[in-house]
Amino acid sequence: MTPANFSPVPLDKSYRLLNHGPTVLVSARHGGVTDVMAAAWACVLDYGQTPRVTVVLDKATHTRELIETSGAFALQLPTRAQLALTVGVGTDSLHTMPDKLMRHGVQLFEAPVGDVPLVAGCVGWLACRLRPEPHNQQAYDLFIGDVVGAWANEQVFRTGRWQFDTAPDDLRTIHHVAGGQFFVTGAAVQA
Amino acid sequence: MTPANFSPVPLDKSYRLLNHGPTVLVSARHGGVTDVMAAAWACVLDYGQTPRVTVVLDKATHTRELIETSGAFALQLPTRAQLALTVGVGTDSLHTMPDKLMRHGVQLFEAPVGDVPLVAGCVGWLACRLRPEPHNQQAYDLFIGDVVGAWANEQVFRTGRWQFDTAPDDLRTIHHVAGGQFFVTGAAVQA
Repeated sequence: MTPANFSPVPLDKSYRLLNHGPTVLVSARHGGVTDVMAAAWACVLDYGQTPRVTVVLDKATHTRELIETSGAFALQLPTRAQLALTVGVGTDSLHTMPDKLMRHGVQLFEAPVGDVPLVAGCVGWLACRLRPEPHNQQAYDLFIGDVVGAWANEQVFRTGRWQFDTAPDDLRTIHHVAGGQFFVTGAAVQA
Repeated sequence: MTPANFSPVPLDKSYRLLNHGPTVLVSARHGGVTDVMAAAWACVLDYGQTPRVTVVLDKATHTRELIETSGAFALQLPTRAQLALTVGVGTDSLHTMPDKLMRHGVQLFEAPVGDVPLVAGCVGWLACRLRPEPHNQQAYDLFIGDVVGAWANEQVFRTGRWQFDTAPDDLRTIHHVAGGQFFVTGAAVQA
């Protein structure tokens, strides 16, 4: 069941979910196994008719293996309310903690397109198809995805724009620096 | 002359300048020509002993040409006080506006290492050597740089950490969404 306020974002506007550089959760599934990890190193690569993203995935992560075999993943934006969850899934590995997702309170639901599980409580989601680039993956741990579906919590993102200033503070996105220190996305300003 | 409060950042901590996903200015120089552009699509690629960054540079930009010929560039973090400058250098091209930098009030100084000009008034700087990857550059406009020098304004970044909460608000970094709308880097929170 999709969460309340889950609303589609047109693909040509989907870059706006990630453009401000928040930390993301990366989810993937293969053969009945699902994993979720945190990544601060995710970025828009292209927009318009060919929305694409990059994300750096360490070779030690189980999520990376699932992506390499399934060819699908999702990036999603956790909130200030999900700080502990974000650090938890970014620290513990499914390799050594099989019940990692349950322990960190991760609740999943199915993406409407993309054949990938999404994390409830986030405020933006990008379902991606892996664009295989073996050299980048091996040499740099760098993965490229074509965005095939995008959604947002319409309390904080609607008509193509973030609306943090009129929503609860707990729904703001977060930006990791190091060692569990984050910045919350701050005030909107117009040039 | 380097600006006041310009202070070196150890290379193994340099990723912390970019980890929270701010919008950057990209500077480069070749044959006596200097250009500066804005880029929201810049990201950490690696840290520790091999600090690296990615940045997406459209084929239409003059800055990209300068980087391809010189093999050097810098990423630097503009502040809330530099919103207009950031949008200005991100909108106008040196191709059609030869005095672009002067018009937008860009003041430059020389990086201590890296043979690249830096933009005054920013709060973090990463001097990079281009790591040629022709396929990425052609197919995705994606450029990889090895970080060879890093500096920060010690009013806002010292002992390896951002200290926005104790500095003037005008020195906060900024995160572009679209159409000149930015978010300021907000409150620090610890998981």
